[in-house]
Amino acid sequence: MKARVHITLKNGVLDPQGKAIEHALGNLGFDGVEGARQGKYIELDLAESDATKARENVEAMCKKLLANTVIENYSIELE
Amino acid sequence: MKARVHITLKNGVLDPQGKAIEHALGNLGFDGVEGARQGKYIELDLAESDATKARENVEAMCKKLLANTVIENYSIELE
Repeated sequence: MKARVHITLKNGVLDPQGKAIEHALGNLGFDGVEGARQGKYIELDLAESDATKARENVEAMCKKLLANTVIENYSIELE
Repeated sequence: MKARVHITLKNGVLDPQGKAIEHALGNLGFDGVEGARQGKYIELDLAESDATKARENVEAMCKKLLANTVIENYSIELE
């Protein structure tokens, strides 16, 4: 089973990487960019085949290691 | 219009970040992780409201700045 995890900064948390992207795109002549936020994307291959258990596992992984839940949100898709 | 861009390493390209995640999860007691790959996730707010033009723009952005197309793939979702 495959899990796709998106980790994004919470609203209101300053995102210097996103700001850098926004400015760099502006400097390159892309005018219509009103905002950019950068997050992380992690693909996991799991041995677990039960979706409920897999989701529980991946949530625990996010809380313990993958995301800093003080400033980041995570979302999990299973496949 | 909002664009979501996923940038992932091409197959066969070594992914040290992914390996680090895999090992760290193993060390934390998560046994069932058979592989991990890390990519980037970028959300863009675009002034453009025409989907075709927006996609063209974002593709140009990926090629020029966001992705290193020698070693990375990108995928674009518009919303």
